[in-house]
This record gives sequence, C-alpha cells and structure tokens, in this order.
Amino acid sequence: SQSGKSPDLVEAARTARKRGALTLAVTNDPASPLAEAAEVVLPLHAGEEKAVAATKTFLAELAALFQLGAHWSEEATLKEALWPLPEALASASQAEWPRFIEAFTEVEHAFVLSRGLAYASALEAALKLKEAAGLFAEGFSAAEFLHGPVALIEPGFPVLVLAPEDAALPGVREVASSLQEKGALLLWAGAEPGVGEALPAPKAPHPYAAPLVLIQAFYPNAARLALARGQDPDRPRNLRKVTRTL
Amino acid sequence: SQSGKSPDLVEAARTARKRGALTLAVTNDPASPLAEAAEVVLPLHAGEEKAVAATKTFLAELAALFQLGAHWSEEATLKEALWPLPEALASASQAEWPRFIEAFTEVEHAFVLSRGLAYASALEAALKLKEAAGLFAEGFSAAEFLHGPVALIEPGFPVLVLAPEDAALPGVREVASSLQEKGALLLWAGAEPGVGEALPAPKAPHPYAAPLVLIQAFYPNAARLALARGQDPDRPRNLRKVTRTL
Repeated sequence: SQSGKSPDLVEAARTARKRGALTLAVTNDPASPLAEAAEVVLPLHAGEEKAVAATKTFLAELAALFQLGAHWSEEATLKEALWPLPEALASASQAEWPRFIEAFTEVEHAFVLSRGLAYASALEAALKLKEAAGLFAEGFSAAEFLHGPVALIEPGFPVLVLAPEDAALPGVREVASSLQEKGALLLWAGAEPGVGEALPAPKAPHPYAAPLVLIQAFYPNAARLALARGQDPDRPRNLRKVTRTL
Repeated sequence: SQSGKSPDLVEAARTARKRGALTLAVTNDPASPLAEAAEVVLPLHAGEEKAVAATKTFLAELAALFQLGAHWSEEATLKEALWPLPEALASASQAEWPRFIEAFTEVEHAFVLSRGLAYASALEAALKLKEAAGLFAEGFSAAEFLHGPVALIEPGFPVLVLAPEDAALPGVREVASSLQEKGALLLWAGAEPGVGEALPAPKAPHPYAAPLVLIQAFYPNAARLALARGQDPDRPRNLRKVTRTL
C-alpha cells in the first residue's frame, strides 16, 4: 500500500493477525495504520507519491518482493540480478512507443495480455489505462483468454501484449499468433521477439524481473497516451488519493 | 470443469496431487482425464452441456460447492436452504429484464459489480456478456471499484449490479449510490432493494445462495440480450467446446 491508510487493507491485516497469521506490510509509509497493524514492515522508501494513480509505489512493491524472494529462496541468480536491476529500469523508463500511442489514441477498449509472473503487470497496465488514459482496458492471462474473451476479437481489435521472458513466453506467443490470425491489432511489448508490432523494452537482468522492466517501460508511454487522448494523467476523473471502502 | 478435458486444469490437478495436496474434481464428466487425475470426484449430473458458453455447468458447480459447504460446516441454516433451492432457481429462470436488454443493446462496454460471494457471479456474468453477447464487459468487486476503474464513469456509463443478500450488501449499495450520483446508467439485479433501475430476482433461500439465484436470473436475459445485439448465443465467435491451453 502507498498510503497504508485504506481501511479495507488495515482491517484485513488486523483480522489475519488476530487469527494467528504472520502479517507483513509492504508500504511507503512505515508510520501508517497498516504498518502498525502488521508484525513486520517492509518500507518502500519510494519518496512522496504525488500522482493519484500510484506508479512508483507499484514498481517499488514489485522490487521489494523481488528482493524478499531472492533472499528467501537464496537463489544466486536472483540475488545477482538485483544489482543491474536499477540500470535496467532506468533504461526501460526511456522506452519510446510512438506506435502504441498512435494505435491506442482513438480506440474504445483494449485487452492487455500476459501470463505467469508478468500477469500482475498486465492487470496493473489495464488499471492505469482506465484511470489515467480513460481507456476501458481489461487485463487477462493469455492462458485464460481463449476461454471466452477471444469471442470479442475481430479485425482491428486492439491488444497489448506484455511479453514475459520465462517459461510463460511460448504460450503467450501462441495466443498472440492466434489473435493476429483473427486480425487483432497486436502490439508486442518486451525484449523477446514476438508477433505483431514490436514495442521495445530492455532485456531484464533475470527472467523473473521482466514484469518490473515491462511495467516501467509502459508507464511513461501510458502517460503520453493519456495526453494524446486528452486526459490529464495526474488528475484522473472521480479519484482521490486514499480510497476508503470497507 | 464441464468437459474435464482442458489440459491446463488436468496438469494443475496432477501437479498438486503429486506434491501432496488432496485433490477434488468438480466435473460434469466423471470419466474425464480431470476426474482421473483427482483423488475425489464430485460429479455434477448436469446432463449434456450443449452450449459452447457453459451455463448449467457453472450453476451446477456453484450448487455442488454450496452442498459441500453446507455439509462440511454442518450449518443447519445452510442445509435447510438446500431444499427450496431448486424452486428458487426455477423461479429465477423466469425473470424478465426488458429494461436490461433495452439499455444494453447499443452499448460498447459495461461493468458488472458485486462483492463477497456474489463476486464470482459478477465475473461469470461479464464473461458471458463477452462470449455470448459480444459486449466488452468487465466484472469487478465493488470494494475494488473505487480504486481506479471509477475513473471511467461518466453520465450514461452502463453498470449492472448483482446485489448480494449478505453482509456485502451495504457496501455494494454505497458504491452503487456514488456511481448513480456520477450519472451512471445503473441497473440493480436482485431481491434486495437498491439504487438505480430494478431488475427483479427472487429472494434466495439463504443469503449465501444469492449468487446462484442471481446468475440463474441473468442467464436467460443474457441470451435475449445477445439476440437483441444480433449475436447467436449458441455460437460465440472464435470459440470451441474444449479450450486447449497449457
């Protein structure tokens, strides 16, 4: 959590802890109610999150979980990947996707597909397209996509693929190919070759780090898309900084 | 699973069992690979599922899980609710929602909202709107909706609410009210009074049975909507009976 203040999160953490779970809060505010509710806190140190549509918090959360996983698993290749990760992210933040902006400026809706670890990045990308760019986009696992949603695909239907670099890649490529055969407007973001029009992103320092690199490459392009669509990405309609639902 | 044949499901069940999990297959085909892979089988006895977009399998799965939960928990009120459930479902299948069909025939996209146990029915309804009616609809938990997707809501934006009958109801009503204030075209399906235009459904024999009653009331109206939108609900575009992804 960015603010550590959403009552639903705080209540869920309190209830889980009361029932005996070991609770860990990953939050940008180590003095927040969420941090107080949990036994262990991983502070994000992301600095002030000025945007309503939190982006650096999401990236910092993924990075914190990546570090946690690397040290917990004691996987040498994961731990080694931590050092070049900031540089890969800095490089990703420079990715320019003019074709994405051109293709998605006028569309009414879109799918964002990925699979495996990068599935979270597809959901986050779809959420950001909704809140910042005013585009009705739904994120889907490529593994689920043929079970129903594919019925909507017709020539020109916009699909953004965030290409994983791990074992999920061949399955994503296969689904993307079948959508391209149906005439979808297919944009393929990532370092690995794929199908459709390529949106470049740097190679991740470890296949499991691809979800971070992909979403970092996506963010500035989503902001540019928002502007192209006449939206102010810093002021999403109807949204406030802390969402209070319980 | 309806067919018990989707390779991804079968493989997941095999892997889970190999690693020591107790595996239970809920399937309409007790001689299927999925049933063979699992240690325990709950056969659905739903008869032949002729539709590509499986509907009676979904309902029969919910009913099987409801029975399992009732007997496992030994909750008397849950077990008592099993007897009037078929009658409530038969009554729900007669629900007529002309206002839903009228309002959703021309729209480009929609949200389907619910919360708690009925969240699954909102996801299923959105999936069926995609595959049978060719309508880009996304299901959301009302608890999540204010964290981003609400940015898309503008006057006339179509939102279908499946109203729960349990503790989730007040929260859903609150979110629906805030969407109505923003001018959303709000349709409220269920037995409980709500906000927006009412789509009638019979009261469930137990609050936890509301997800079954709601989706049963929805299905025939979704088929009518598909026809109104010029789609054949029995022949969704691009879909086959068994989806093979792995």
